[in-house]
Amino acid sequence: MDQFTNITIDKKANVYFEGKVTSRTVLFEDGTRKTLGIMQPGEYEFAAELKEEMEIVAGHLDYKLSGQDWQTIEGNGVFYVPANESFQVKAYSVVDYCCSYISE
Amino acid sequence: MDQFTNITIDKKANVYFEGKVTSRTVLFEDGTRKTLGIMQPGEYEFAAELKEEMEIVAGHLDYKLSGQDWQTIEGNGVFYVPANESFQVKAYSVVDYCCSYISE
Repeated sequence: MDQFTNITIDKKANVYFEGKVTSRTVLFEDGTRKTLGIMQPGEYEFAAELKEEMEIVAGHLDYKLSGQDWQTIEGNGVFYVPANESFQVKAYSVVDYCCSYISE
Repeated sequence: MDQFTNITIDKKANVYFEGKVTSRTVLFEDGTRKTLGIMQPGEYEFAAELKEEMEIVAGHLDYKLSGQDWQTIEGNGVFYVPANESFQVKAYSVVDYCCSYISE
């Protein structure tokens, strides 16, 4: 089982879209940050401030980066969102994800 | 903001009730374990193996321990579940919880 060690976690969840998307913020010793999140089935648009690595740990979704075609992930996969861009998601199942925020 | 430090977290979520209840397992240096979870609105029955401290961080729910009356928590609160007992929950909102497992 993949684990992250020596981290700090906020007790309180981050809640978006009336709770259909929730996440937990984890802070690493090197100052970097990830969120571990769950999406309920639905359609969402997210705005990235920093560059994001979106790792889908489990689930079935389509995603669309700005100016690109829709792509599908079933099971697991990863995509990258440039800083200051939005992306769209259509989640067809509960989606378990790990988002890493990357300062450039 | 309350935080837990020097912990290990599983990357993958725990998924129950078709994803309407999900949680993240965090392990502490002293060997103890908590789960940070989210319930979508709905009715659930949970079985506790160890004694559990169920802290409601945010949300509105009724809960019922075995042999006791229904109780309400709105906002935040805490209840304890004896080892090897079940409890019922009616969640009226998204519920953010922190469950501590207590070996006796």
